Amino acid sequence: RKLKIAVVPGDGIGTEVMPFGVRCLKAAASVYGLDLEFEEFDFASCEYYLKHGDMMPKDWKDTLSQFDAIYFGAVGLPDVLPDHVTLWGSLLKFRREFDQYVNLRPCRLMPGVPSPLANKKAGDIDFWVVRENTEGEYSSIGGKIFEDTDREVVIQETVMTRVGVDRVLKYALDLANSRPKKHLTSATKSNGISITMPYWDARLQELQKAEAYSGLKIDKFHIDILTAWFVLRPEQFDVIVGSNLFGDILSDLGPACTGTIGIAPSANINPEGKFPSLFEPVHGSAPDIAGKGIANPVGMIWAGQMMLSHFGFSDAADGMLKAIENVLARQEATVVTPDMGGKSGTTETLGVAIEKEILSL
Amino acid sequence: RKLKIAVVPGDGIGTEVMPFGVRCLKAAASVYGLDLEFEEFDFASCEYYLKHGDMMPKDWKDTLSQFDAIYFGAVGLPDVLPDHVTLWGSLLKFRREFDQYVNLRPCRLMPGVPSPLANKKAGDIDFWVVRENTEGEYSSIGGKIFEDTDREVVIQETVMTRVGVDRVLKYALDLANSRPKKHLTSATKSNGISITMPYWDARLQELQKAEAYSGLKIDKFHIDILTAWFVLRPEQFDVIVGSNLFGDILSDLGPACTGTIGIAPSANINPEGKFPSLFEPVHGSAPDIAGKGIANPVGMIWAGQMMLSHFGFSDAADGMLKAIENVLARQEATVVTPDMGGKSGTTETLGVAIEKEILSL
Ligand SMILES: CC(C)[C@H](C(=O)O)[C@@H](O)C(=O)O
Ligand SMILES: CC(C)[C@H](C(=O)O)[C@@H](O)C(=O)O
Repeated sequence: RKLKIAVVPGDGIGTEVMPFGVRCLKAAASVYGLDLEFEEFDFASCEYYLKHGDMMPKDWKDTLSQFDAIYFGAVGLPDVLPDHVTLWGSLLKFRREFDQYVNLRPCRLMPGVPSPLANKKAGDIDFWVVRENTEGEYSSIGGKIFEDTDREVVIQETVMTRVGVDRVLKYALDLANSRPKKHLTSATKSNGISITMPYWDARLQELQKAEAYSGLKIDKFHIDILTAWFVLRPEQFDVIVGSNLFGDILSDLGPACTGTIGIAPSANINPEGKFPSLFEPVHGSAPDIAGKGIANPVGMIWAGQMMLSHFGFSDAADGMLKAIENVLARQEATVVTPDMGGKSGTTETLGVAIEKEILSL
Repeated sequence: RKLKIAVVPGDGIGTEVMPFGVRCLKAAASVYGLDLEFEEFDFASCEYYLKHGDMMPKDWKDTLSQFDAIYFGAVGLPDVLPDHVTLWGSLLKFRREFDQYVNLRPCRLMPGVPSPLANKKAGDIDFWVVRENTEGEYSSIGGKIFEDTDREVVIQETVMTRVGVDRVLKYALDLANSRPKKHLTSATKSNGISITMPYWDARLQELQKAEAYSGLKIDKFHIDILTAWFVLRPEQFDVIVGSNLFGDILSDLGPACTGTIGIAPSANINPEGKFPSLFEPVHGSAPDIAGKGIANPVGMIWAGQMMLSHFGFSDAADGMLKAIENVLARQEATVVTPDMGGKSGTTETLGVAIEKEILSL
């Protein structure tokens, strides 16, 4: 089977890590005999905006709908354009308009990568964050009244729907059910956020009654104490489900506990396959290190791995993950990037090392 | 000067740690010659609710307004009453109706307390979280439509006001300005939460122009990456300001990075002194360990210390903090509670040790 992949590097380090993501995917394709077709686009970037006055061409949706997957770098340069303009004009549009309602993010302490947490070794941290990806706190409903006066009031609405909450909870329940630990943790804040969050809790309570989930261990934590547990006892987690905002926070904090957010990937999935799914690193465009050639390419490469896995190319996906692990485990200071303790390692040394490792599988 | 203190133990471990908080304050009063008057109340507890059908008596506001400060334990027993009932019926009412718009929470790695972060020693982590405490994400505006159907939609509004945002930002700017590092970090999420958060950023940008703040270093991070930095490089922070929800999260995560949230205190301040301020531990009622006598009393005692500090009794406050530090630094397994690595230590052994230490100052 053939996979048509739209390549959208975006801004900042997105453009620096993308070439190595593509090279590694091509390497995997050659080793495992996959038919991958790539087409690159320059929109969803500040440069495009400055030229065209918009983040994307009018027909972006038609264009990208032709593809099975979007391989996405990172977008946004806050010194050039406000983040809410760049993000709402691209990434958040993809997620919403392509109904990528599951954002799936693994969090795993890899061999060789030093954790900021004391006494943790590879394998101790190994869980998935399932994030609602289309509604919740990321709504654009709201506005201002009494503008520019002392009475100014600004309102923004969090919107949860039965459809939106149920489908992501079900995805998370099923994922947890498919894993040996069979353990689902729900992030909530129903003690403070008194309308939407109790609703989230109630929907989970309703759905978990299904016979199919009778073997699951299910618990819930308020988001504040949940972040504390990430640091104090990350071993206890298996699958964690959260709203758009809570999932966002947990899927940066989690990877930080595994050493660096530079390695974390993110799959924005439309489970029904009606629209293309999108695969990206969790790290953003990182303007502070852009142009230095030291961005960690693992998040981008691992996102490619998730893409293969999503489309059922399990052998190739397993191989890519193994290759990443092998290279990281060697922890060569001339290969790995500075965020993982490397000395002279660069995006290129690390990217090429993983590509080679894949080719030698 | 005399201080009239309303003692509200609440639920769960709140009732277990409170006696030691009061004893330590009395010890400090005797050593430093302070005139502290205590009166205890049984409302703001589930037990009270079960008896009276409400969390508090109708005249709670008049009653508590007679006091300079409220010394508060913890409230809520989710197995007895839903959290949003107990919290919105007491603690969140105090914060809002007494206009305690600053929630101030120190985060400090204490001598002797093992941090879950690798290679951190006492003093490495030392910052303040300033949390907006009356508005923002904790609004009760919103509701449901198409209830109990597949079209169900649930909405909750985040409300920020010019008054509310400006006053807490000013408090944080002033606090940062008064410290040697002169460094303020603002928590935002303006790339995703596209109305209220850009407003928060804009108000900070406006206020920081004031001549008085020209010596300040000010930066901002999105909440997701900010939680990552807490784990990866907590040394970099000095004063952090956040909305109600973000401040809530950061002030649980921060203390977790310093070993246990059991030691963290929280001051809910009405800076103008028009209403009583409220001092409480950050930990909640912790039903899972309630009744075992092992709750860490330090959060409660340190909250008492913040109360003395707030009212200008600096010698007594310094003494209490020193006493806490001295006892923790000894790290006696028969004294400190299990959450700090203690073996047979209990609420009582630790509480009494600190009381004694104060009396010996
Ligand atoms: C109990 C809960 C409502 C409260 C809050 O979220 O404010 C608590 O977590 C806190 O931090 O004081
Ligand atoms: C860039 C930003 C809008 C985005 C988000 O908050 O969703 C990012 O943090 C992420 O996690 O993918």
